Amino acid sequence: MKLKKARVYVTLKPTVLDPQGTTVAKALNHLGYHEVEGARVGKIIELHLSDQATRARVEEMAGKLLANPVIENFTVEMEE
Amino acid sequence: MKLKKARVYVTLKPTVLDPQGTTVAKALNHLGYHEVEGARVGKIIELHLSDQATRARVEEMAGKLLANPVIENFTVEMEE
Repeated sequence: MKLKKARVYVTLKPTVLDPQGTTVAKALNHLGYHEVEGARVGKIIELHLSDQATRARVEEMAGKLLANPVIENFTVEMEE
Repeated sequence: MKLKKARVYVTLKPTVLDPQGTTVAKALNHLGYHEVEGARVGKIIELHLSDQATRARVEEMAGKLLANPVIENFTVEMEE
């Protein structure tokens, strides 16, 4: 049985404040990286799936458990 | 002045235990997604940069502040 892989990228919606990202941007500025104007932090969830897995099911998982659809967007990337 | 964007993907090295990922995989199994055999959780940091930013500088930032090179790998993706 071959394994499939899926990656779910979860990012905050653009209108949602991201204090963690702001802190990262400030820390980089303090380290001398003045080209950084802002930062946003998100999550990647890499799933190892059995071969009967489908993109539709992974999107369902993302919407139910992996992302909070009120404040987050997600995209799914499948890979054999 | 045009803004550039960079995305830094930070993932745990394959040999490092990921209890958060294990919990995600178990939770998905409990919800009926039995095709999930494992999961690993990582971070995405999206940087908004001024136009003089370079990939080399972003890789330096990732190694110094965004990732912990002892337990994490990172990849950088630049976008105009």
